[in-house]
Amino acid sequence: MTQLIAVLPGDGIGPEIIEQAVRVLTALGESFTIEQQPVGGAAYDAAGHPLPPATLDLARKADAVLFGSVGDWKYDKLERALRPEQAILGLRKQLGLFANLRPAILYPELANASSLKPEVVSGLDILIIRELTGDIYFGQPRGIRTAPDGVFAGAREGFDTMRYAEPEIRRIAKIGFETARKRRGKLCSVDKSNVLETSQLWKDVVTDVAKEYPDVELSHMYVDNAAMQLVRAPKQFDVIVTGNMFGDILSDQASMLTGSIGMLPSASLDESGKGLYEPSHGSAPDIAGKGIANPLATILSAAMMLRYSLDKPAQADRVEAAVKSVLAQGLRTADIYEEGTTKVGTTAMGDAVIKAM
Amino acid sequence: MTQLIAVLPGDGIGPEIIEQAVRVLTALGESFTIEQQPVGGAAYDAAGHPLPPATLDLARKADAVLFGSVGDWKYDKLERALRPEQAILGLRKQLGLFANLRPAILYPELANASSLKPEVVSGLDILIIRELTGDIYFGQPRGIRTAPDGVFAGAREGFDTMRYAEPEIRRIAKIGFETARKRRGKLCSVDKSNVLETSQLWKDVVTDVAKEYPDVELSHMYVDNAAMQLVRAPKQFDVIVTGNMFGDILSDQASMLTGSIGMLPSASLDESGKGLYEPSHGSAPDIAGKGIANPLATILSAAMMLRYSLDKPAQADRVEAAVKSVLAQGLRTADIYEEGTTKVGTTAMGDAVIKAM
Ligand SMILES: CC(C)[C@H](C(=O)O)[C@@H](O)C(=O)O
Ligand SMILES: CC(C)[C@H](C(=O)O)[C@@H](O)C(=O)O
Repeated sequence: MTQLIAVLPGDGIGPEIIEQAVRVLTALGESFTIEQQPVGGAAYDAAGHPLPPATLDLARKADAVLFGSVGDWKYDKLERALRPEQAILGLRKQLGLFANLRPAILYPELANASSLKPEVVSGLDILIIRELTGDIYFGQPRGIRTAPDGVFAGAREGFDTMRYAEPEIRRIAKIGFETARKRRGKLCSVDKSNVLETSQLWKDVVTDVAKEYPDVELSHMYVDNAAMQLVRAPKQFDVIVTGNMFGDILSDQASMLTGSIGMLPSASLDESGKGLYEPSHGSAPDIAGKGIANPLATILSAAMMLRYSLDKPAQADRVEAAVKSVLAQGLRTADIYEEGTTKVGTTAMGDAVIKAM
Repeated sequence: MTQLIAVLPGDGIGPEIIEQAVRVLTALGESFTIEQQPVGGAAYDAAGHPLPPATLDLARKADAVLFGSVGDWKYDKLERALRPEQAILGLRKQLGLFANLRPAILYPELANASSLKPEVVSGLDILIIRELTGDIYFGQPRGIRTAPDGVFAGAREGFDTMRYAEPEIRRIAKIGFETARKRRGKLCSVDKSNVLETSQLWKDVVTDVAKEYPDVELSHMYVDNAAMQLVRAPKQFDVIVTGNMFGDILSDQASMLTGSIGMLPSASLDESGKGLYEPSHGSAPDIAGKGIANPLATILSAAMMLRYSLDKPAQADRVEAAVKSVLAQGLRTADIYEEGTTKVGTTAMGDAVIKAM
């Protein structure tokens, strides 16, 4: 049976970068079935909802999902439930994609792109594991109401619920330990247990899971300190595991340390290893359609998909090696361009990767 | 009537750095009354509680509070309600200190201390205004319970409530606009309104308050993007206003951009301008008692106190000028030392500031 890949290009630069990733996948010569559906604003335009049934169905039945990016200012005035971002939240929740893996790697050729000093970031290779289906992102109850109690009783108030159940913490902690074990053996769990009850349980459960992994060195860090340490000395980290909200903030911060977020892929996995793969950067509507977007994060996301969900590690290696080779050749899209290198557009970058394979 | 200053040295390096700040205040020749009480772990040791009644009473009746720092690993095993950090949370809540002002300023003499490239941070001068008495820090209900519903119903779960009422948002937004008006006229409100109901209300209310400040340029940014932009191009910001949780993370991140958090003061103000002043850094128990801690953040916190709560702007200027002068003289504590400067200890740094006044 051929493997089915759901391709969801989305908005902004999504379609352009996805196109190159699909070309790369096709060039591998494997017999995948690739099916495409709109998502985000594009799906709202086409079908009145950011995650229409046809899109969700395809994602459900596929072996893996390759996702571009969603969001555009033109949808800002829609009610929240219809905005493009709801598509990605819905996919995560509906598909049970609880484990988000976000590598922050600085390619030696791109060391100058970072806003940090070379000695602080050269050789950076950290992996942030963010829980993706729980926390304050989905916790009920939530809403806007008349405050029922407190000093401001009677006033209009917004409220949300942060929640983590023990099995949820346990399964993401396990992913953290398993992953750290395959890397440099260090896991840092980030929480705010000096203030939050949710974090206290988080810390207790992670500490408990650690007993099964005596070979992994576990540390705990408060989220505010983690945000500082990522700026001060990011290379102290190997794997970081944290909740949905803190992970949203820290994974973006960590990506930006490299200065080349246009290079960074991500994977969001369910219990069985099925996953959704997307670049770490956003939809960049300001440069959409200009043919200048960097397709490498999406191409590297396709490589992660080959490795984690499609069981084709050799093909993943091929793609990753090809990306390294185009960097070594000096080819750069505008976002990572510097003097002495060759500036190319989105399609030319895709061409170069295919050629390098 | 002489003004009463409550001095709460706390734990770790707290006592050493507070001592220098008190010497500086005394050297001004004003007739303050200075009273001291233990807080944090020191208070737990002395009186069985991190914020004993005598300490809270003094803080209440004082015109301003000068606070060192709290926390030490040796209290880690205490139950949460007795841990040193509860003292600072209790003081904020009991005294209604809802507006936390955290400048992140890079002194030209210390540009090398930053882990960021000089061109990215030179001249950095941003102010983070963090709401300090609401949000998930204090929201009820919270606790550890058996999950009442959801996929993990029946499992043990931790939960917390994020809450902001309209008047709470309105008053901190006003502080944001008033402060931006006195600076470069730019206010960035940070939220996560694409996901959180609390943030949606936050954004709506800030947008409404903006009508009273047509001269201030307001922008909105998601917290994940703010964490990225602070790394990428921090100088784009003037004043940032945000909630308690996001402010905790972003203000620490912003401080660390300078590489010299040992220089950064903070103020936490109530409705009437009364405030608690403390260094932005922590209690650093690893270097406590060695006489090497940097007292300048605490001395500059005393200067903020003179300006905001004690109505002595000229004296505040004197202290700040003296700090600049000791930096210009090349004096440095270990945390900001670099080759070609003169390394001094805590007391010698205090001496130098007093001499420079
Ligand atoms: C678009 C938004 C809802 C989303 C999130 O907050 O999870 C995004 O920031 C991300 O990290 O993928
Ligand atoms: C000690 C802790 C409770 C406190 C906070 O989270 O507010 C600290 O991190 C701070 O920012 O002052």
